[in-house]
Amino acid sequence: MAQEKKLVEAITSMEEDFAQWYTDVVKKAELIEYSSVKGCMILRPNGYAIWENIQKQLDARFKETGVENVYMPMFIPESLLQKEKDHVEGFAPEVAWVTYGGGQELTERLCVRPTSETLFCELYSTIVQSYRDLPKLYNQWCSVVRWEKTTRPFLRSTEFLWQEGHTVHVTAEEAEERTEQMLNVYADFCEEVLAIPMIKGRKTDKEKFAGAEATYTIEALMHDGKALQSGTSHNFGDGFAKAFGIQYTDKDNQLKYVHQTSWGMSTRIIGAIIMVHGDNSGLVLPPKIAPVQVMVIPIAQHKEGVLEKAYELRDRLAVDFRVKVDDTDKSPGWKFSEQEMRGIPVRVEIGPKDIEANQAVVVRRDTREKIVVSLDELETKLSEILTLMQREMLERARAHRDAHTYTAVNYEEFKDAVANKPGFIKAMWCGEEACELKIKEDTTATSRCMPFTQERLSEHCVCCGKPAKTLVYWGKAY
Amino acid sequence: MAQEKKLVEAITSMEEDFAQWYTDVVKKAELIEYSSVKGCMILRPNGYAIWENIQKQLDARFKETGVENVYMPMFIPESLLQKEKDHVEGFAPEVAWVTYGGGQELTERLCVRPTSETLFCELYSTIVQSYRDLPKLYNQWCSVVRWEKTTRPFLRSTEFLWQEGHTVHVTAEEAEERTEQMLNVYADFCEEVLAIPMIKGRKTDKEKFAGAEATYTIEALMHDGKALQSGTSHNFGDGFAKAFGIQYTDKDNQLKYVHQTSWGMSTRIIGAIIMVHGDNSGLVLPPKIAPVQVMVIPIAQHKEGVLEKAYELRDRLAVDFRVKVDDTDKSPGWKFSEQEMRGIPVRVEIGPKDIEANQAVVVRRDTREKIVVSLDELETKLSEILTLMQREMLERARAHRDAHTYTAVNYEEFKDAVANKPGFIKAMWCGEEACELKIKEDTTATSRCMPFTQERLSEHCVCCGKPAKTLVYWGKAY
Repeated sequence: MAQEKKLVEAITSMEEDFAQWYTDVVKKAELIEYSSVKGCMILRPNGYAIWENIQKQLDARFKETGVENVYMPMFIPESLLQKEKDHVEGFAPEVAWVTYGGGQELTERLCVRPTSETLFCELYSTIVQSYRDLPKLYNQWCSVVRWEKTTRPFLRSTEFLWQEGHTVHVTAEEAEERTEQMLNVYADFCEEVLAIPMIKGRKTDKEKFAGAEATYTIEALMHDGKALQSGTSHNFGDGFAKAFGIQYTDKDNQLKYVHQTSWGMSTRIIGAIIMVHGDNSGLVLPPKIAPVQVMVIPIAQHKEGVLEKAYELRDRLAVDFRVKVDDTDKSPGWKFSEQEMRGIPVRVEIGPKDIEANQAVVVRRDTREKIVVSLDELETKLSEILTLMQREMLERARAHRDAHTYTAVNYEEFKDAVANKPGFIKAMWCGEEACELKIKEDTTATSRCMPFTQERLSEHCVCCGKPAKTLVYWGKAY
Repeated sequence: MAQEKKLVEAITSMEEDFAQWYTDVVKKAELIEYSSVKGCMILRPNGYAIWENIQKQLDARFKETGVENVYMPMFIPESLLQKEKDHVEGFAPEVAWVTYGGGQELTERLCVRPTSETLFCELYSTIVQSYRDLPKLYNQWCSVVRWEKTTRPFLRSTEFLWQEGHTVHVTAEEAEERTEQMLNVYADFCEEVLAIPMIKGRKTDKEKFAGAEATYTIEALMHDGKALQSGTSHNFGDGFAKAFGIQYTDKDNQLKYVHQTSWGMSTRIIGAIIMVHGDNSGLVLPPKIAPVQVMVIPIAQHKEGVLEKAYELRDRLAVDFRVKVDDTDKSPGWKFSEQEMRGIPVRVEIGPKDIEANQAVVVRRDTREKIVVSLDELETKLSEILTLMQREMLERARAHRDAHTYTAVNYEEFKDAVANKPGFIKAMWCGEEACELKIKEDTTATSRCMPFTQERLSEHCVCCGKPAKTLVYWGKAY
């Protein structure tokens, strides 16, 4: 039993130190390894496979809405980055510059893309001529670089993987529709596949994307009560179009500017999966995103027929599930704790007595419930168990979020909530950046979003007491 | 008819100027757009969709052999790149250097990965301890950067997309097996999916990868008689392992070095698809790789019921094929030439008379054959036609290659062949680099590979006349 304990003991409990628990899980579940490149991390097979599943399912949802994939260069010439004033101000401080290539100093330095609005704008200014060419609904899966001082696996790293969609449209209305549509694609994907409920809303001007007219966001609440911005969708209006000269000839033969959007989701969302669902035994993956859904673990595998039966079950289950068998020479207990650490949704234990009784023991990762299942109905039962687990994980996450969402109608309540009640705080706001700054200064909480579902908690700004304009979700955030 | 002609007239004929034909097809089929970043190209939806299909099918073949995907940082610190002497000598002259990040000059400059051996070695030196940890069979899909002076779409660009597999093994034999296995995966994929026959062989020492003990290659012959290196697989022995200290404790409790391989295929292979199968009407895509396999084109679509029938056929065919309907307001002739330019394997023409006769006209892209098909058996017939087309494309490519493969037993024959017979030249070689250099100097032809299937054409080196060691495929190459 000593051996079994080691893996679990290797991680700090989340009650003791949530940040350390997170780092331990990331490392022990073999999601990430650090590299000698400052701030850059290696996605190991267990981590990258989650991203592959996210890509596959999110990409299919994009394509259903007409989106096409492209690939743009990773470099942006300095002069191109500077074409849109707000945009360059937002990003220039955190970019990496290539100054030498092929043994020579470059005449113009190139930044490694922190995001690709400028490149897409340049492309669209070339290929869009007529209203017939619109809309263009392009997306790319790639990595981007933002020079970060402090980094954390998945949450903040110098290089990270993401997708960035960039669309151009004939009308402002169509661009607005697309901006909201993609936010909904993200929110639905997170709820239905990742079992993470989202608050949808609009960012304040202070928090919006550099160069955007409006930024929409989905915000999730982690187990420790901190918020995580999980995906954003921006409406650029015709600002970039004017800076880059993206014009089309309309049906009325007039030259007009396009209206533009962009939207992105990154490997950051894997951090959310870990911090929403994980427990003190490690990762807990929602069945729909888990690279391995079922781990078959033979008990007393040296005994005749056990391994054969385990392989037989794997082959049977492979038709309906992503399944593996752990046939290493480790002890069953050790295999259990590895399966738990990796967050594999269920394990199927099969030993000599089970074979004799024509049954297997199915153990759910989230609840640890043990369910004895007849081998004759293994597929049906597993399918039911995984469906139930997916639903209950979402329900638990929602219950946790709701239980950690507070309201504050005056500044004392607000400060007390930030200090003593980790979670979202709903409070009214006057609309002035000064109050956002003061709140951040006083409490470290930031405005997460102005939710689409508005309430009227009071008539006064929680900070300055002046007339309130809108309800805002506030919170400490990753 | 004037309109119909325009698209085809926009491309140079391949007999007139093959290089210009290639560039025209790449541009008019909307595979690539140039960017303002020197040597970097934009993969547009038609181009990227081909890469997506290559990825999907090649990745599945990798995974069948146990390969797992990871993602490594795009930056390599200079000190890490320098750890293996031959490797850094091979790549340092063509890398791009990041010297500033986050507004500050870096203390150590970072190169943008030209390939990732050094990063994988660093990872393996950390995570491999015991024979139980072996083999590791990792791969990543990413982009790499090599500073190129002259660039051509797909064939040579400063940044390009590829996959790079990196494996470590207990024994030299296992590493050698893996090196050959992956070369076979590439060759089979190219023949079975891309309809491109390959010559498999080993590179001479002069042409092998920087740091490898042996490099294997697959070589294809383009329509103009030039060769294209289409994929390579390298056996590193334990050279990198020693440079990076990748050791494991074996069953006998001894500390030993791993044996290592790497293997890669890039977007270059799309250049091969174009130059092997294309014709003077544009691209011709093998059905198995075509993003759209069937284009339904309504004839007289303003007439009642035509568009509805076209949509009905699309929905029916979507069960078995990748299908689209061209319902734009262009003329049918224009739609035909667009479908041909894009290389879509078949079009299905459906007009009022066809509907009345319960039929459609299927036109094969490669042969232009028109086949009248009853709507009752459309799926079956299309499936037969696409299967036949896939097979015949491979047969034609093989016949072309065989008809353009020559032998030379003395230097006069050799020089005459290079000058007058575009294609592969099989000739004996003494094994000395001096002869390779002289042949390149005299003729611009290079050694493509020492084929696995050896022949004994003569006892003398085709260049120096000394005793011959091996048969070599020679040719001008992209």
